[in-house]
Amino acid sequence: MANQLIPCDTLLTASVLVSQNDTRDILREAALAITDSRITDLGPSADLTARYQPATRLDLGDALVLPGLINTHTHAAMTLFRGLCDDAPLASWLTDHIWPAEAKLTPEAVRLGTLLACAEMLASGTTCFCDAYFFSGTVAEAADASGMRAVIGQGVFDSADLKFKTSDQALDAARELADKVSGQPRLRPALFAHAVYTCTTRTLERCVELSRERDLLLATHAVETARENDDCHKAHGLRVIPYLERLGFLGPRTLLAHGVALDTADITTLAAHGTAVSHCPKSNMKLGSGIAPVPALRTAGVTVSLGTDGAASNNALNLFSEMNVAALLHKVAAGDPTAQGAQATLDMATRDGADALGWPELGRLTIGGPADLCALDLTRPALTSGYSPVSDAVYAASGGEVVLTMVAGQVLYRNGQYTTLDYPKLRQEFREAARRLTGR
Amino acid sequence: MANQLIPCDTLLTASVLVSQNDTRDILREAALAITDSRITDLGPSADLTARYQPATRLDLGDALVLPGLINTHTHAAMTLFRGLCDDAPLASWLTDHIWPAEAKLTPEAVRLGTLLACAEMLASGTTCFCDAYFFSGTVAEAADASGMRAVIGQGVFDSADLKFKTSDQALDAARELADKVSGQPRLRPALFAHAVYTCTTRTLERCVELSRERDLLLATHAVETARENDDCHKAHGLRVIPYLERLGFLGPRTLLAHGVALDTADITTLAAHGTAVSHCPKSNMKLGSGIAPVPALRTAGVTVSLGTDGAASNNALNLFSEMNVAALLHKVAAGDPTAQGAQATLDMATRDGADALGWPELGRLTIGGPADLCALDLTRPALTSGYSPVSDAVYAASGGEVVLTMVAGQVLYRNGQYTTLDYPKLRQEFREAARRLTGR
Repeated sequence: MANQLIPCDTLLTASVLVSQNDTRDILREAALAITDSRITDLGPSADLTARYQPATRLDLGDALVLPGLINTHTHAAMTLFRGLCDDAPLASWLTDHIWPAEAKLTPEAVRLGTLLACAEMLASGTTCFCDAYFFSGTVAEAADASGMRAVIGQGVFDSADLKFKTSDQALDAARELADKVSGQPRLRPALFAHAVYTCTTRTLERCVELSRERDLLLATHAVETARENDDCHKAHGLRVIPYLERLGFLGPRTLLAHGVALDTADITTLAAHGTAVSHCPKSNMKLGSGIAPVPALRTAGVTVSLGTDGAASNNALNLFSEMNVAALLHKVAAGDPTAQGAQATLDMATRDGADALGWPELGRLTIGGPADLCALDLTRPALTSGYSPVSDAVYAASGGEVVLTMVAGQVLYRNGQYTTLDYPKLRQEFREAARRLTGR
Repeated sequence: MANQLIPCDTLLTASVLVSQNDTRDILREAALAITDSRITDLGPSADLTARYQPATRLDLGDALVLPGLINTHTHAAMTLFRGLCDDAPLASWLTDHIWPAEAKLTPEAVRLGTLLACAEMLASGTTCFCDAYFFSGTVAEAADASGMRAVIGQGVFDSADLKFKTSDQALDAARELADKVSGQPRLRPALFAHAVYTCTTRTLERCVELSRERDLLLATHAVETARENDDCHKAHGLRVIPYLERLGFLGPRTLLAHGVALDTADITTLAAHGTAVSHCPKSNMKLGSGIAPVPALRTAGVTVSLGTDGAASNNALNLFSEMNVAALLHKVAAGDPTAQGAQATLDMATRDGADALGWPELGRLTIGGPADLCALDLTRPALTSGYSPVSDAVYAASGGEVVLTMVAGQVLYRNGQYTTLDYPKLRQEFREAARRLTGR
C-alpha cells in the first residue's frame, strides 16, 4: 500500500490547532500537510499520518498551532534605539534622543536593526510585518534574508529639518522599491506617508496617485494624539480624517496607524471607505497618547489590526504581549469585561491583520493557503489548564512559549534556533552598530 | 596562596546586576558570594573570583541579575480555573463558573494547583508570593515543597452560601497555621479577611485582634470596584476605608489588595496609617474594575506593591508582564509618559513588595540579605540593546527570558528545569485534578 501514500514536503502534527478559518474551527490531534509554501491538507492527525508520505515530519506533541501573527505597524530597525530613552515627554524623547540618533543612520545599521527585529518577531510567533522606515530597499533585503513575509513601506515626508530624502526622491524610491520586490512572493511594497503634519497636501495627493498607479498599500500615522486634530484644523480647516477624505486618501487599500483620537463621525467615514486601522495599544499607552476606540471601530465594521510600533516606544515586538494588553485595555476603558474578547483579539492579530494589509490569504490556516504558522509549547505552566486555547493564547501566553515559527512552509525558528540567521554574529554586529549611533 | 581563599557555597557571576539597594546601584561584570541562604559578598566579578573558593560556581555570562520578584496578592491554586471562563460579566463568572468549581475543591487539588502556580512563578522570576485561599495548611506545605518563600494567608469570611469554614473555624485555622509555619524561615502566616462585604464587623474586629496577638500580616480585598464603597456606605454609613479605619483595621501590618476606588481622603488615611496597597493592574483591567490611583498613592507615601491576583482573572502569574502593564496603564491614564517610570515599577515588584509584606530584607540584593534572585538571558533579541537594564526589565522583557531563579541560596529553576518539582508528574496530576473539578 506504500505506493498509494501521497508525497508532501512536511507533515506537521500537534495536539491543538486553532485554524482562524471563517468558522473558527479548533482541531484536536491535528495535522497539516505542506508542499512548497502552502498547506495542501489539514485534518485529524490519524487520517493525514495514514495518507501522507512526508519528506520531513514535525511532530510537535503537546503544542498549540496558530496562524503566524501579523504585525501591521512597526519601524523594525528602531530596535537600535530600544530603551535609549524612556519615561520622557514626547518632545524631548524625539528631539533630544531619537532624531539625533536617526540622523546618523546608515543602510548597514538599518539592515542590522531590521534583522534583529526579525529575530525577535520570529521568536514570538510573528510571521509577517508591515514596516515603515528609512532605506526601504535595505529593509526589503533584510526581511527577505530572514525568510519572513513583509510589506515594506517607503517613508515619505516633507520635513526640512532632517537630512533625508525629499518627498520627490522618496516617491522615486517607492517606485524603485516596487520594481525591486516585484515577483518576490514574500514581499510587497507600500507607500508610507509619514503624517498629515509632516507631509504637504500636494505630497499626500501624490502618494494617493502613486498608490493607485502601482496598486500599493497606502499607509500613514493618523490621529495618534488629539493634538493632531487641533493642528490639522488650524492648518486645513478640518480634522484629520475629513482632511484625508477630501484628499482621496481613504479607501480599501489605506491603512491608518494608531487611530486614537477618532470621533463617531470619523469612525463612520472610515467604515464607509473600507479603511483599516492598525491599533498599537502599548505604544499609545507608553507615550501617554490615549486609547483608540477599538470596540466602536469593530462594531462599525472597520477592520482593526494590531501593531507594535517601533521598539523605541513599546519596547517589545511581541504580539502575544500586544494581544494581551489590547484585550485588557478595552475592558478597563469600557468598565466592561465583555468589551473586547479573546477571539476578537486573536482575530486582530491574525486574519484582520491580513485583511488590513490587503493580503487576505494570510492570517488563517486553510487548505490551499500559505503555510505561515507558529506553535506554543502547551507543557509550560501558564498553558497547562487548556480549557480554551484562544483564551490561553491571548491571556496566559507571554510569547516565550513559542517553539516553532514557519513562513511559506519553511521553519525559520525552532526551540531558540534560527535557520536563516547567524544570530550570535548578528547580535554582535547589531551591538556595535547601536553603539556607533548612540555613543552608549 | 590557595589557603587564603574564602570558602563560600556559591559564587554567581553575571554581566549586569541590578541591586535595588537604597542607592539603586547597578553593577557591571558583577559577582555574588552566597553561603547558606544569604549573600555574603557582592562586587566586581574579578575581585570576588580572586578572593573566594566556592563549592559551586554559577557563571551566567551575559545575564541580568535582579532581586527575585515578589507577588503580593494571588490565589495560587486558582491555576486550576485559568481560562475556565473569560470575557464574561463578573456576576456570571463567579456564580456560574468559579464558585461551583470551588465548591468541589479538595486539599489535594489545592496542593496541585499551588505547586503548578509555584512552577509558573519560578519560571518567570518570582521568588516570594502572598497567598489567600482555602486549605491554608496545604498551601503552606506546597509552597515549602517548592522551595519558594511565601506569606500564607488563612482566608476568613462569613458568607453562608459557601460550604466552607465559619469565621470561628477560620480564625482557629489561622492560629494553627501560625503554629505550623513557626520557625520555618521561608514561610510566614497571615490573616486574609476576605472583604468588608463578606465579613461581619465583628469578624473584621476579631481579625484585627488576632493579627495583633500573633503579629500577623492582616490583608483584605478592598475597594476593587466603586460599588464596594456604595454598598459599604449603605450598610455601615461609611466608605470602605473610613469603615476599616474605624474598626482599627488599618496600620503598618495591613495590606489592601486592589485599592481601585480610592479618593483623596482615603489616600491620606492610608498614608497616615502606613497601610500598603497591592496593586493588581491586569486583574483590574480584565474584570473591568477600574484603575487604581497608583501615582497619587506613591506621591502620598503609600507603599504600593504588585500582585497578579489569581490565574482565573489575569490569566498569568508573571510579574514581568504585570510590571509592563502597570507602567503603561498609569502613563495612559494620566496622559503623561512620565507618570509611572521603569524604576518606580521595578521597585513595586521588588523592594516595595517586601516592605508591603513586612519582610523588608527581601526585594534587594545586599550583603547579609537573603539570596533570592532571578536572572534574565541578555542574549535574547528583546534584551540586546542594553542601554538601560531597568527599562529592559520593565518594558522589553516578557518573563520568558528568565534562565535562573534562586530562593534562599538554592537554585530552584534553571533553563526550564526545576530542582524541587517533578514537573512532568505534577503537570499530569494537575490536569487530572482540574478535569475532576470542572468536568472539562
